[in-house]
Amino acid sequence: MASRPSFLVDINGVLYTGNKPIAGAAEAVDFLRDNDYSFRFISNATQSCRATLHKKLKSLGFDIREKELFTAPVATARYIKKTGMKRCFLITTGDVYKDFKKEGIVQTDKRPDHVVIGDAGKGFTYERMNAAFNYILEGADLIAMEKDRYWRSSRGLALCGGPYTAALEYATGIKATLIGKPSRDFLLLALADMNAKPKNTILIGDDLITDIAGAQRAGMRGFLVTSGKHDRKDAKRSVIKPDEVLDSIAGLRGLDLYNKKK
Amino acid sequence: MASRPSFLVDINGVLYTGNKPIAGAAEAVDFLRDNDYSFRFISNATQSCRATLHKKLKSLGFDIREKELFTAPVATARYIKKTGMKRCFLITTGDVYKDFKKEGIVQTDKRPDHVVIGDAGKGFTYERMNAAFNYILEGADLIAMEKDRYWRSSRGLALCGGPYTAALEYATGIKATLIGKPSRDFLLLALADMNAKPKNTILIGDDLITDIAGAQRAGMRGFLVTSGKHDRKDAKRSVIKPDEVLDSIAGLRGLDLYNKKK
Repeated sequence: MASRPSFLVDINGVLYTGNKPIAGAAEAVDFLRDNDYSFRFISNATQSCRATLHKKLKSLGFDIREKELFTAPVATARYIKKTGMKRCFLITTGDVYKDFKKEGIVQTDKRPDHVVIGDAGKGFTYERMNAAFNYILEGADLIAMEKDRYWRSSRGLALCGGPYTAALEYATGIKATLIGKPSRDFLLLALADMNAKPKNTILIGDDLITDIAGAQRAGMRGFLVTSGKHDRKDAKRSVIKPDEVLDSIAGLRGLDLYNKKK
Repeated sequence: MASRPSFLVDINGVLYTGNKPIAGAAEAVDFLRDNDYSFRFISNATQSCRATLHKKLKSLGFDIREKELFTAPVATARYIKKTGMKRCFLITTGDVYKDFKKEGIVQTDKRPDHVVIGDAGKGFTYERMNAAFNYILEGADLIAMEKDRYWRSSRGLALCGGPYTAALEYATGIKATLIGKPSRDFLLLALADMNAKPKNTILIGDDLITDIAGAQRAGMRGFLVTSGKHDRKDAKRSVIKPDEVLDSIAGLRGLDLYNKKK
C-alpha cells in the first residue's frame, strides 16, 4: 500500500528569494496544512534566530508556526545541550545567539567546550578566528552549523561559514561536526520532530547537492524547485537526479505524492 | 669524488628565535663565508619585506647581505613577473608589498590577475577575503606565499596564511599555487640563485616537515637543528629522518660536510 508522504521544505529559494515570496508558495503551504500532511521547514540560515526567521515568514504572508521551523542553529543548540556540556564560543552574527540562550547554552570566552561556526560575515575577525583556533587546540569541539561555500548577497557573492570552518580544520587538523544540511543527522532530527520516516518523506529544495543529494542519501525523495539557485539545465547536467523537478513549490498540488516505490 | 656542499639556511629558529640570536649562529655564518661555501638564507616569513628582514638580521649581529636572503615574498613577486602579468591583489601585512613593488608588480583592487595570500594577521578581514574570493571566481590565480598553519606569537599561537588559503580553496574549489617552503620550486629557485645542485646541497632548518622533508623530497640533505620548534624527541618520533640532528647551527663546524653518497 502506498504511504502518505511527509514533507521537509527548504525555505530560501523555495518559499522566498531575497525579500519576495515566491508566487503560489503561501498557497502551497496552506494546501499541505489543509490536507493534514506532516511537514517541517528546514534551513541552514545562520544569520538570525528562529524567532526572527519566523517573523519574516509571517510578514511575507506565510501561515507557519515557529515550532514548524527546524533551523541549523536550533539543531546545533539542541545537539550541544544533549552532550551535557553548555559552554560555547560562537562565531555568528545577528541575534542567532538567542537560539542558544533558549536551550540554556552559555556564551563564553573562557575555556569553552564547543566552538560553533555560523555564517558570521564581518564577525569573522582575525581575533575571533584565532581565539577559536586556540580553544580547539585546548580541547573544544568544532561545530559547523553549515558548511556552505557562499551565498548571493545584494552586493554579490559572499563567503558563508564553510570556508572559515575549512580554515580551522586546516589549522588544527581536526574535522568539524556538521549540523545543518546536508547532514543526515539534521534531516533525521527534523523527521523525528514530526514522527516521520525517510522513505515516506519528500524533501523540497532548490539546491542539487545540499537538498536533493542530501535527501536521497538519507533515504528520502528529493524534489527540486527551479525557483531558487538551480534551473532545469543544472538538473540535466548534474549526476544528481531529483525525483521530480518543479518550477516552484506551487507545482506540488498537481502531483501524485504517494511513494510508488516499496 | 665527494663534492663540496652548498647550503640553504632557514632563518627563524636557526639564526634567531623571537628577537634573540641563537648562540654561535653568527659565528657559523662567518664560518661558511670564510670557507667560501655557497649559501642562501631562506624564509617563509611573509610579514615584512626582505629589506626589513635584512635590517633585523644585521641588528642581531649577522654578517649577511640582502641578496643572500631568499624569501617567499621575493620568490612570489618574481614568479608573477615571469607570467608576464602584474596586477596583484595582496592580502598581506607590514611592508611586504615593497618586495612586489620592486619587481614592478602593481597592487590593485580592480580585476587583478593574481590573488596573493601571506601571513596577514589582522589583514584577514571579511571584506578582503570576500574580495579575493570574487576575484578568483572571475579568473585570478590564487597564490599562497606559504601554507603554514600557525606560529608562536608573543601572545600565544596565531593563525598563519595556510588556513585562510584553505578557506579560499574550499570556497572556490581551486587549489592555490604554493610558492614558499616546502615547495620544490622554491628550493630549486634558491639553488639556481647560487648555481648549486640539490644533491650537493644541505638544508639546515628547524621544522621536520617544511624543512627536512621538503629538502629530502627535492633531493637535498636535511639537517635538523633543535634550537627552534622541534626537539630531538620530535625527530625520534617522526617518520621523517633528518640526515643530521644538531643542537644548533653552531654544530656545523664539527661535521664532515662532504656528501659521501653518490
